Amino acid sequence: MFESRLAAVAARIEARLGDHLSGDEGALAGAPDRLLQAMRHGALGGGKRLRPFLLIESAALFGLTEDDVLNCATALEAIHCYSLVHDDLPAMDDDDLRRGQPTVHKAYDEATAILAGDSLLTLAFALVAGERALPAEARVEIALLLARDAGAAGMAGGQALDLAAESTELSEAEIARMQALKTGALIAFACEAGAIAGNAGADERHRLRRFGEIIGLAFQLADDLLDETADASQLGKAAGKDRARGKKTLPALFGIEWTRRRLAELVAEAEGVLAPFGDRAEVLIAAARFIAERDR
Amino acid sequence: MFESRLAAVAARIEARLGDHLSGDEGALAGAPDRLLQAMRHGALGGGKRLRPFLLIESAALFGLTEDDVLNCATALEAIHCYSLVHDDLPAMDDDDLRRGQPTVHKAYDEATAILAGDSLLTLAFALVAGERALPAEARVEIALLLARDAGAAGMAGGQALDLAAESTELSEAEIARMQALKTGALIAFACEAGAIAGNAGADERHRLRRFGEIIGLAFQLADDLLDETADASQLGKAAGKDRARGKKTLPALFGIEWTRRRLAELVAEAEGVLAPFGDRAEVLIAAARFIAERDR
Repeated sequence: MFESRLAAVAARIEARLGDHLSGDEGALAGAPDRLLQAMRHGALGGGKRLRPFLLIESAALFGLTEDDVLNCATALEAIHCYSLVHDDLPAMDDDDLRRGQPTVHKAYDEATAILAGDSLLTLAFALVAGERALPAEARVEIALLLARDAGAAGMAGGQALDLAAESTELSEAEIARMQALKTGALIAFACEAGAIAGNAGADERHRLRRFGEIIGLAFQLADDLLDETADASQLGKAAGKDRARGKKTLPALFGIEWTRRRLAELVAEAEGVLAPFGDRAEVLIAAARFIAERDR
Repeated sequence: MFESRLAAVAARIEARLGDHLSGDEGALAGAPDRLLQAMRHGALGGGKRLRPFLLIESAALFGLTEDDVLNCATALEAIHCYSLVHDDLPAMDDDDLRRGQPTVHKAYDEATAILAGDSLLTLAFALVAGERALPAEARVEIALLLARDAGAAGMAGGQALDLAAESTELSEAEIARMQALKTGALIAFACEAGAIAGNAGADERHRLRRFGEIIGLAFQLADDLLDETADASQLGKAAGKDRARGKKTLPALFGIEWTRRRLAELVAEAEGVLAPFGDRAEVLIAAARFIAERDR
């Protein structure tokens, strides 16, 4: 039931991204073909689309439909995809494979991958600003939050800390900070943006942010666990790579059993934060479990 | 008189950029120090700040003060600076020198330069969204326009076409399209955004856009002329580089005298477009002349 709902949202995000990246209309009308192709290569054809799902389900908690926030959700996925395109570059993580396909700089070239990433990032803000179902005030607030959570004080800053970690030993606190920025910020954004779109009160908005932070932690922990235990065919990308690079992860420091216990604690904490919403939060709670227990 | 006004605006943009890039408050609070340093390296300490000047003076035509649009103007400069940081990368134009200083990837490293560019681009949208003096509707419309003019159908698309031009022969029409996107789009944005901020009517807004397009053409033509005639010490960057790379420019195709005549025509055209504004357009007309006649 949860997974079919996730798949349905993924299909809608894929379609909406495809519409925008066709270059037929909107902010990309008139863009050069090869650049559009590279953007499609980096953004279409895969991914669980978990972040947009969280945004849509957070907004649903406040009575909004999928259509009310579909462009905001698509924007969030565009940001996530841009970050993958840039992170895969030779100067960054130097990955040849992503979702079982050549990465954008492999399929095209480095310059095109840099520009495709830049263009996906830029597109995201066109999508938020153009979310006609929401009042301008909400769009502005969501854009501001997205810029904070995606930028140097969020995801991009986390990637900078992660790269620095290849040459210096990080403490547990420093690993936590890096991961909170690199992975946590966008997931927390997803949940908080849904609350903003839904015109939530301060306490509700704060709860959604907190929920997002908790499941962001769980997401990273589950990811690191998979890097320790899964193989490349399960992941569609190289496995065991973090360890090979000397990147410290919490599962590497504390072991697999500790990690599984910690994941269960985080799910319980996430449930507690959303308790005031009662049954309405059922899908988000299912998402928290899915994140903590996923095997790919 | 015009140049002192330009210098005064440049000083304010420099100060505002510096405030944001300190990381003390706003969207960058909590960002990693080294990434902030690289962003400052890429954005501070130089530049005529011509684009923000055009935005401020276009808004002034409709009665707005510098303070009303200072964050939007700063956002535009952040976009311009991000594009320079990325264009200088080894995979793109591979430049070691910018404004007489080492480029960001030389002073830091490639990964940091990519992330600093990404972060400056992201910051720009935080600045537009956070322009408190303007109504949310204007901020949303300006963000949408900025995303179009900076993205794949604007500046980034132009850079993609420019890189492709190193390996294929472009026609005059293709050169014009490439330059309209790469350089023209952001300059046209500057003028149109000022009109949006000033709540201009459709005809006025259209005139400002058109004015921006014309001076964008003049800007590129003057730039290409300088590449033919000036030396590196005048430019603070390598000269004659376009020609050495086999990049076709209009001055290279049609000669220096043709270019000077064409520049004079463009200035006259720009004056015509702004004629309905009378004396109020004096500063913008002076800007058009400055752009066409500059020697560095």
